[in-house]
This record gives sequence, structure tokens and C-alpha cells, in this order.
Amino acid sequence: MGVAQWFDGLMSSRYTAPVVLPCDPACTVVRDGVLDVDDSGRITYCGPAAQAPATSAPVTALTGILLPGLVNTHAHSPMTLLRGMGGDLPLLRWLNEIIWPAEAKLRAEDVRAGMVLGSLEMLSHGVTTSAEMYFHPEEMADAVLATGARAVLGGPIIGLPGIDWHAMVRSTERWIDTDGLRFGPGERIELSFAPHSAYMLPTEALRLTAEAAAARGALVQIHVAEAADEDQEQRAEYGSVPRLLGEVGLLDGRLLAAHAVHLSDEDIQLFARHGVGVAHCPGSNGKLASGIARLADLRAAAVAVGLGTDGPASNDDLDLWEEIQLAALLARLSTKDSTALDAPSALLMATRGGAEALGRDDIGALEPGRWADFVHIETDGFAFATGLDVPDPQLLSNLVWAAGSRRVRDVWVAGEQVLADGESPRVDREKAYAAASESAARIRA
Amino acid sequence: MGVAQWFDGLMSSRYTAPVVLPCDPACTVVRDGVLDVDDSGRITYCGPAAQAPATSAPVTALTGILLPGLVNTHAHSPMTLLRGMGGDLPLLRWLNEIIWPAEAKLRAEDVRAGMVLGSLEMLSHGVTTSAEMYFHPEEMADAVLATGARAVLGGPIIGLPGIDWHAMVRSTERWIDTDGLRFGPGERIELSFAPHSAYMLPTEALRLTAEAAAARGALVQIHVAEAADEDQEQRAEYGSVPRLLGEVGLLDGRLLAAHAVHLSDEDIQLFARHGVGVAHCPGSNGKLASGIARLADLRAAAVAVGLGTDGPASNDDLDLWEEIQLAALLARLSTKDSTALDAPSALLMATRGGAEALGRDDIGALEPGRWADFVHIETDGFAFATGLDVPDPQLLSNLVWAAGSRRVRDVWVAGEQVLADGESPRVDREKAYAAASESAARIRA
Repeated sequence: MGVAQWFDGLMSSRYTAPVVLPCDPACTVVRDGVLDVDDSGRITYCGPAAQAPATSAPVTALTGILLPGLVNTHAHSPMTLLRGMGGDLPLLRWLNEIIWPAEAKLRAEDVRAGMVLGSLEMLSHGVTTSAEMYFHPEEMADAVLATGARAVLGGPIIGLPGIDWHAMVRSTERWIDTDGLRFGPGERIELSFAPHSAYMLPTEALRLTAEAAAARGALVQIHVAEAADEDQEQRAEYGSVPRLLGEVGLLDGRLLAAHAVHLSDEDIQLFARHGVGVAHCPGSNGKLASGIARLADLRAAAVAVGLGTDGPASNDDLDLWEEIQLAALLARLSTKDSTALDAPSALLMATRGGAEALGRDDIGALEPGRWADFVHIETDGFAFATGLDVPDPQLLSNLVWAAGSRRVRDVWVAGEQVLADGESPRVDREKAYAAASESAARIRA
Repeated sequence: MGVAQWFDGLMSSRYTAPVVLPCDPACTVVRDGVLDVDDSGRITYCGPAAQAPATSAPVTALTGILLPGLVNTHAHSPMTLLRGMGGDLPLLRWLNEIIWPAEAKLRAEDVRAGMVLGSLEMLSHGVTTSAEMYFHPEEMADAVLATGARAVLGGPIIGLPGIDWHAMVRSTERWIDTDGLRFGPGERIELSFAPHSAYMLPTEALRLTAEAAAARGALVQIHVAEAADEDQEQRAEYGSVPRLLGEVGLLDGRLLAAHAVHLSDEDIQLFARHGVGVAHCPGSNGKLASGIARLADLRAAAVAVGLGTDGPASNDDLDLWEEIQLAALLARLSTKDSTALDAPSALLMATRGGAEALGRDDIGALEPGRWADFVHIETDGFAFATGLDVPDPQLLSNLVWAAGSRRVRDVWVAGEQVLADGESPRVDREKAYAAASESAARIRA
């Protein structure tokens, strides 16, 4: 599969920081905290220094806030190459005149260049895992392994004239059967099936995908009810897209529904009953005027909801911190309740909640046994200018509402540092820009 | 008035950049652009290098994008001291239990420390002018003159038991009559009247303010229709707050209505007929669940609309670029039209439109005769990773939707550099943090 192999020998390490946010369900703020990581890149302890076990591991003393790497539950990151193309055209003209013609020119090496760029950008914002749906998934895997990030990848399965969706399903099957569902150092890559949507595929394709995924325990990523009118045919025949997904067997496996803007009460209950995860993309849904998803109702029904940026051609900056703020703003506006989603709840959606939406219990929180995917935010900026010695709710407010991605300085994935003082120790940013520029110029031409 | 005087002798200067955005009504993108500034700090030329006049002035070659300094039309910036206090409490509990008790402890020197911090933060985001309403306006003026930013200041006029609103109106009158409506190097300070709101003042106070302001040609800043229920009494008596403002004479002078969320068609027409400016604050209105202002309708009626952050206790980061994005998102969601506010229109609201809302024609655009308040955005970040050599709409999209404040490197006000490579040449940031921390700790105690 042409996957580059990277591995630096790891050893046990201890990290200390004045503030550590494990992102447990209560969103506890640990003062004077410690994070211990073993030589396999897994967490062995996270909590107060006073209760930490004795260790002979080397200690790295950090000066800001430690928290889990954010989980971006819906992205098409190689579209960094297309960022801003078509400016603010109406959706259909944008797709027909700009995006699809540009994508038709994409070669495998373009996808790699775009994904390297997107992956570096996400790391610089403290996003360590992304769920990706895009062409040439092997190149995406190669790019992610190069930057050292983590991803759940799927090549889109699309039913257009001249495209053989059978072959697309079989190709993912073969890959999983060859390399396994998860692979790479620190199991950085998870493979998934990515049928584009109910409206872009015949029901047989959805059924075949459901069977192939269930047989392998694989996640299925799919766009659901993004625009109000996109799935009228399915609705006419099955009542709703979620019902159709149940009909073809997709609700019985691991399913991640991206967008999920236009859901009925019954749809929400269906998702809740079947443990479907939702990738909430408030920025993309706003920019494209798709609507506001029923976040409060989804959460009330105990549906696992994570946050997603969507692709950088439509959102445009792969900064999940903006989705954290937007999720809270839009939840408050749509319920007319200024307490509808508080700062800790919004932060948990981007970490622990994102992992849960992907059906993963090994990322998204700093807990023993999980991968040591974590972020160090320097607190020397304006957001914390009046100090860290404030009550916990104020500290979390400052982080979520004022700091965001501004001062993300260092990032580790599976215990390995993949961002150091804002730069990648693995990939030369200038070279990544040059490769992406070359690809982008050719696509625009 | 205790106003610090700063003045470095200026001389004529030329600045060049690969991209210059004058923010003319068409939002023209000038490639290979030139900006000429005379020794009084005013612009003498802005346009293509090919058409620039000959000059013997020293030339500074910049490598990114030049555009006018942003205009923040509504802020209470000294509230940086209170940022995040009370986290996500419901509005009334937040005010009663947290904000008002904290504000009761504020001394003049606290306001200065908070305003210095807020002013530095705005400059770091490329905001050069802010319209401010807060206590101890003399200290605010002193702080703004220290950082070198520009501000329109007003001490709030409030009608609470034990507070003498007559004295508050008279105090602003006296100040204007002493120092003039505008003063300071580069006329950095404009004085204004700032009656808090119709619901916090008797109509006599509004009438007296209208007369005092009209006699001096001064701007009046006032909160209007922020929450749905705040002005029920006025509505019951006068039909609407805008009608009341007409009744007391405020619509006949220069008026800036902050928020203006809950307006009828008739209110909008009234604003349009009287040239009232609106400070649109989508972030604050979202976070506090106040509602979505009728931006598309205001613009269709040709009301001058600028953008405002509101105070950092409620928004929380004084980054007007976020308001640019939010204004567009919410306009699109509320009209279900993804073309409702495009990137250039949103950018113009934050620059030229903000100046217009304040009734100013000397800032907000790079045009001969206006003050040389301008910003240099470095284009070495991810937003422009695929290059500047893209069509104009794509470049503006990348700036507005992806770059934002991330790479604001240098800022000039009235031709004087007040941010250099991200830092203030005038004010020590660490000392500003220390002063603000000390004040904030005392207020929290």
C-alpha cells in the first residue's frame, strides 16, 4: 500500500504542567498535574502530582495547559488544495463549476500533498485525530504517517455513471484484509468504509457496504441529511434517511453520521437506540446555509456527538476550536438559552465525545490505557493575561472562548512529539507548502 | 484630564506589498500595491505601483497583505479584567452575582490596566479603532494614547438609584468643551456620549443627552434592543425603542445603536431615514442567546452597519475577525442563502462600514486624506499555503475564512507603527499583564 513506516524508539516519560485537563466526563481541572506515558505510547497515569507514582522516567516540565488531542470527526483534508476556490458561489454552481472540475484533475500525488498540508495544519491547532473521507486513501495514509498524526480513513464510495461502486467497496475490503483494521506505529491508521451518502448511492451499495463493514468490525462514515432537500427521494420512499440506513443494515454496525442537520424526533431516537455517532459540523453547515443541527436534542437523547470541520474548501481552516465555539453559540441561539452548552461540555465534545462518536475508547481523554495523544497550550497570550489562578469555570471559559488554537505549541501522538514549538519535527513546512502550491496551481489551471 | 502625550516626529513614508486592499466600496484587490503616507500621518496615495507618484520617501517593502485597520464599533474593553468570570451562568445571575459586584470594586487604575490590555489585544488582531463605553473614560483615553490605538470613548450614563445621571452628562460636556471633540496625536481620541440604554434611563436623561450631543456634534452610543424582553416598558409606551429615540431627539444627531437585535420593519426604516449607525455584535448576541440581528434587512435598507466584539467578559477575545465570520454565518443561516454575505462584504463591514456606522470618513479605508491606520498580515501561514497567485475572490476568501487574525504582524495608526512583528514598541506586554493580573486578583477576591 506504499505506506511509509516511521518509528522512533520511545521510552517512558513524565510530563508535568500547572494545569492538566484529562477530559473525564466531569471535565475536572487538575492543578499541578502529571501525565505518565509508557514506552508503547500509552498513558499510565494522569492526575495530581501529589498522588503520582514514583518514577525514574525523565520529566518534561511544561508551563501551560495539557489536554487530550482534539478529535475532528469529519474532514476531507486534502481539499486544502482547493481552499477558497469559487469564493462564495451558491452551492450547486460551486460544486458544478469549481469543485468537481478541479477534483477531476487530482492525481494521487496531489492528494498526498494536500493531506500533508491539512495534517500539519490540524496538528498546529492541536487536532491529533481526523476522520477523513477522500479519494486516494492510500496516499492519505502515507501523508498521515509522515506527519505523525492519527486518522480514520475511507475512500469515498460513490454511485455516478461510469463509476463502479462495487470495486470501491471491494478495494476497502481488500485493504483491511491485507493491512488489518488498524496499523502503523501507535496504530495511527484506522481503515473505514465511506459511502458518500444515501442520495449518491443505490440501496444495494449501502447494503453491500453494511455487510462488508460488519464482517470486519469497521466503522462506516456517511453524510446524512446535510441539506434540507438533498434526500427527498429517500424520504419519499423510506420516510427518512436514518430509516433507510436501518433498512440496509447500516444502523446495526459502527456508524458515523456526518452533519445530520435535518432529523426528526424519530430519527434521533433511532440513532440513540443504535449507538450511531454524529459528526456535528456547525461551521460548514452555517457557511453553506444548510441549517443548524439539533444538538441539544441529540445530546438529550444521549447520542454520541463529536465535532467536525468538514473540508477546507468549505469551512475553511481545519481549526476545531472554532467548531467548539460555534457549537455552543448555535446551540444557545437555537434554544434561546445562554446555558445550553457550557464551555466544559463544548470542550468534551471535541475530545472525549469525538472519540465516542468514532466508536473509539483509546483516544480523546488522558486516562490510563489510552494512547498518549496530547496537546500543550502555552498560556502566555491575552486569553490568560490575568493568570491561571482563577476558579476552574473561569479557566475553562478562558480556554474555550478566548484562547482556542492561538497558542497550541506542542503536540504528541502515541507519546511521540509531532509538533514542537509550533513546528513539525518530521516534515519541512516550506517543502510541504511548495508541493501543495504546485498541485494547487495545476488544478486551478 | 491626565492624558499622556505621545508624539514621535513622523515623516513621509512609502509602503509596498504584493497585495493591498484599500477597502473601497468594490473591495478591489490591488496587486503589487503602494501606500504613501505624509508627515501628518494621512494617506496621500493607495493603488498600483505602476501608477504611484514619484517619491523620495523611504520605502518599506512588506511581504504580505496590507489593509485598513479594523474598526470595532462596540466594546467595553477594560472588562479584560473580568474575562471568563462566572463562566457560563445564566445572564441575570451572571450580572447580579458576578459582574456588578466585581465592577463595584473597580478603581480608576484598574480601568487603565484593563484598557491597556484590551487595546494591546485589539492591536494584535489588527483592530485600530474601537468605540468604547465604560467607567473612568479619562483612564481609557490615557491607556489608548499609551498603546497608540484610536478610540471613540464614552463614560456610561446610567439611571440607577444613587447615581446622578445629570452629573454624568455634564461631565462629558465639560470634557468636550475643554479638550475638544477630538484630540491627541493623530486625533486618536474622539469623545462621545454613552447613555447606557432606554431601559436604564428616564426619558429626560435621553433628551438632555440628545441636546448636549447635538450642540457639540458628538456621537451618541447606546445599547438598543439587545434582549427580547429588556425594553418592554418602552415598547408599551412608545411602540418601540427606536421610536422612543426619535421622540427624545436622539435620531436627529449622530447615533450609534449597539446590538439592535430585535427591530421591526418600521424600526429599520426609521434608522435608515435618520442615518443611524448599527454596531452588529453576532458573537455576543450568540453567546448570551440574545438572538440574531436582521443584518440582511438592515443592509437592504442601506443602514450603515459595522461589527462589534462587545466586552471581553461576554465574548471573550476582542478579535473582530471572528465577528466577520460569524456575521456571514448567521446571515446565511437566518436567510437560508449561502450567498447572503460574501467574504468581501463581510470584510468591508469591519473596515469601511464600521467607520461609516461611527459617522467617520477619516478611517476604515486606504484612501487619500484618511488617516494611515493600516495592518500588515503575513501570508506565510496555512491560509495562504498554496500561494497569493489565485483569483481575487479566492484570495479574499482565504483572508476572511481561513487567515483572520492569525498572522497580523504589524500595525500602524496615523502613520506610526504601533505593532511590530506582533509586539508593541510602546508598552511592555509583560508589565501590562502584571498590572492587569494585580487588578483582576483584587476584583475577584
